[in-house]
Amino acid sequence: MINQKNVRLGTVRSSIRELFEYGKRRKAEIGEENVFDFSIGNPSVPTPPAVNAALKEIIDTYDPVLLHGYTSAQGDFETRKTLADYTNARFGTSLNADCFYLTCGAAASLTIVLNALLNEGDEVITFAPFFPEYRVFTEQAGGKFIPVKSEDDTFHIDFERLESAITAHTKGVIINSPNNPSGVVYTEQEIKQLTNLLKKYSEKYSNPIYLISDEPYRELVYDKSTKVPCVFNYYAHSIVCYSYSKSLSLPGERIGYVGVNCEMPNFSEVYAAVCGAGRSLGFVCAPNLFQQLIKKVYNVTSDVSVYKRNRDRMYSALTEYGFKVIKPEGAFYMFVKSPEKSAVDFCERAKKYEILIVPGDDFGGEGYARISYCVAPDMLERALPAFEKLAASYR
Amino acid sequence: MINQKNVRLGTVRSSIRELFEYGKRRKAEIGEENVFDFSIGNPSVPTPPAVNAALKEIIDTYDPVLLHGYTSAQGDFETRKTLADYTNARFGTSLNADCFYLTCGAAASLTIVLNALLNEGDEVITFAPFFPEYRVFTEQAGGKFIPVKSEDDTFHIDFERLESAITAHTKGVIINSPNNPSGVVYTEQEIKQLTNLLKKYSEKYSNPIYLISDEPYRELVYDKSTKVPCVFNYYAHSIVCYSYSKSLSLPGERIGYVGVNCEMPNFSEVYAAVCGAGRSLGFVCAPNLFQQLIKKVYNVTSDVSVYKRNRDRMYSALTEYGFKVIKPEGAFYMFVKSPEKSAVDFCERAKKYEILIVPGDDFGGEGYARISYCVAPDMLERALPAFEKLAASYR
Repeated sequence: MINQKNVRLGTVRSSIRELFEYGKRRKAEIGEENVFDFSIGNPSVPTPPAVNAALKEIIDTYDPVLLHGYTSAQGDFETRKTLADYTNARFGTSLNADCFYLTCGAAASLTIVLNALLNEGDEVITFAPFFPEYRVFTEQAGGKFIPVKSEDDTFHIDFERLESAITAHTKGVIINSPNNPSGVVYTEQEIKQLTNLLKKYSEKYSNPIYLISDEPYRELVYDKSTKVPCVFNYYAHSIVCYSYSKSLSLPGERIGYVGVNCEMPNFSEVYAAVCGAGRSLGFVCAPNLFQQLIKKVYNVTSDVSVYKRNRDRMYSALTEYGFKVIKPEGAFYMFVKSPEKSAVDFCERAKKYEILIVPGDDFGGEGYARISYCVAPDMLERALPAFEKLAASYR
Repeated sequence: MINQKNVRLGTVRSSIRELFEYGKRRKAEIGEENVFDFSIGNPSVPTPPAVNAALKEIIDTYDPVLLHGYTSAQGDFETRKTLADYTNARFGTSLNADCFYLTCGAAASLTIVLNALLNEGDEVITFAPFFPEYRVFTEQAGGKFIPVKSEDDTFHIDFERLESAITAHTKGVIINSPNNPSGVVYTEQEIKQLTNLLKKYSEKYSNPIYLISDEPYRELVYDKSTKVPCVFNYYAHSIVCYSYSKSLSLPGERIGYVGVNCEMPNFSEVYAAVCGAGRSLGFVCAPNLFQQLIKKVYNVTSDVSVYKRNRDRMYSALTEYGFKVIKPEGAFYMFVKSPEKSAVDFCERAKKYEILIVPGDDFGGEGYARISYCVAPDMLERALPAFEKLAASYR
C-alpha cells in the first residue's frame, strides 16, 4: 500500500477545480463568450510592465552562473535586506534581513511555517470561511485543524466562538485578511482584540500561541479608509506568509516569503525551524531569477483599479437584483448569500444561466457562494443580465 | 515546544556548508586566489546561451497573464508532452504527457515521491556513499532510512549486502547514477541485476519495491562508452526524479520533474499520490517561466567538456601523487581515499594547504573525501602543487 492520504488528495478534485473543468467543457460547447466563469482566483490583470522589463535587464546584465545559481536557503541577502527596509519604512517595524526567508509562494510559506511549529496533534485554529488548503497543509504537518465560525453575516472574528475553541493544545491561529473567500478585511481594533486574547491564553497555558498571517491579498484593498494592520506591531509571536502571486500577478512563478517577528523571545529557534522545515520539505531555495526581481520591484503592484471597478459594478448590480452580499473591502472575491438553503443547489441553478460560482461549503461557508471577480470587465458586464435572471428565478 | 526535529535541521549545518563558510572566511583573510575550494557542487559552467535567449523570447512574446499564471499542478501540458516524446525517442519508452509531473527541482521530486509512497515506518534503501539529504527527505516522509554499503573500493552495488537489507517493510530503493559523491555510473548489467532482485523480493513479499532513480547528473558523463541506462526499460515500478540544475546550470531556478513509469500496474494510484503529495507539501506548480523554457531547450546541455578536462587533469595528477582515487565516469565529484584512517583528519590536514575537500563521513563514505571538480580550470591548476605537498606530507 502506498500513502492513501496522498492518493486521495491527488484524486479528489476541489469543487473549484471541478467547476473550472466543467467551464472549459462548457465553453467548448457553447462558445467562450457565452459562459460567465467566476470560479477561479487567477489574476486577470497582467504583471506591471516594470516586471518583464526588470526580468530582461537581470538576464542581460547579471553573471549567468550567479544569476541561476543557488542562493542560501534563506534567500539572497540583498533581497531580504530590501524586504526588511521596506517593511520597516512602511509599518514602523524593526526587522532585519535575517527575519525573512524567501519561499516558492504562499502555499510553501504556510507548509514551511506549519512544519516548523507543529508537533503531532497540535491544534491550529482558523476562521471560517477559509481557504480550503489550510486544512490540507495543517494535517500534512501532523496538526489538527480547528475551524471557528466567523460572525454571522459580517464574517468578522467571533471572539466568543474563538475563546471556546482555544485549548492547551492550540499552537497557532491562521488569519487571512483580506480574506479569501469573503473579501473581509480585519480592522485594527479586531487585530488588537485578537492579539490580546492570544496573549491571555498563551500565558494561561504557559505556551505561546503563534499568529500566522497569510497575506497574499495585502495589496488588494480598494478604499483609502481600508488599512491592513501589520501583525508584527501587535504581537511578538507573529509570522507573516506573503506571496507576490496576486500583488504582481505572478501566481505561476512561485515567489513569496516568510517573515518571522524578531521580537519573538524564541526568535532564533523559530527561524531555525523555518529553515529546517524548508530543507526537509525539499524547497532548497526560492527561484533565484524571481528573488533578484523582487529586489527591484518590491514596491510595485499590479493595476488593481480594474478589480475595484469590477467589485463596485458587481456589488451594486447584485444588490439591486436582490442578492444579499458581503461588500468586499479587499482580495478579489465576493461572498453572496444563497437565496435557498443549499449553496450547492444555488450554484447548480446558476449553471443554467451559464454562471459559474463556487459553493461556500468547501470554505466552511455554507449557505454562501464565492464569486471571483478577477475577470475581464466586459465578461462581467455581459454576465449581469444572467445574474438578474438568476435572481428573478427565486421570486 | 515547537518542532525540535526541524529546529535541529535548521541549526546544524552540513559539513559541506560548514566548510563552504570556512572557505568564505579564509578567502577574505588570505585572498580568493590562494584558497582551493572544492567543497561545493555548484555548476561552474554558465547556462547555455540558448537558455537566456529563450527566456527573453518567452517574456517578449507570450501573453503575460498566461506566462506568469498558474499551470495545472502537474505542469504545462505541452511541456510534459515534449518530455514524453523526447524520452521515448531517446530511450525507446512509451510514456505520455501524464507520466510526468513538473517540480521545483530534484529535491522537490524526491520529497514528493517519498511522501507519495511511504507510510509511517516504511523502509527506504540507498547505497552508501549517498547524498546526505536522502536521509532527511526519507525521515520527513515518515520512513526509515537504510543505507547499504557499496562494494569496497569500486562503489558499485554490493548485491549481497543489498539482499540482506531487504525486508517485508522495504518500500523503495533510491539509486543515484552518476553518483554524488563517488562519480560512479551503474552499468546496464548492474541495473538488470538490481531490478531482477527487486522483482524477486517484490514477489516474495507480495508488495512492490519501488525503484527511485535520482538523476540530476544524467547528462554529465564523460566517455562515449559510458551509458546511463533508463530504468523505465528494466522495471515497471520505477520512478525518475530529474532536475535541470546541473544539465542546464540552473540550480537556483528550481525546475525538474518526476516521471512515473506508465507500465506500473498501479500507475494511476501512484501518479495520483504524486499529485497529492505535491499539493500537501505546498508546491502548487513549478515556476511557469521555467516550465515554458524547458519546452524550448529540453535537448540542450551545458558545455560539460570543462568538467571532463577537469576530471582528467585532476585524476591523473592525484594518481601521480600517490592518491588512490575512484575514477569518476560522471557527475562532477571525485572520491579520493584518505591516506590516514580518518577522512575528517585528512580534510583538516588538507586545510593547511588551503585545500577545501569534504570528508565522506556525512555521505556514508568513511575513509574517503569528496572533491567537487566543477571549478575554474585555472584554480584547479593552481591547486595541484598543494595536493602534491599534501601527498608528500604522508610519506
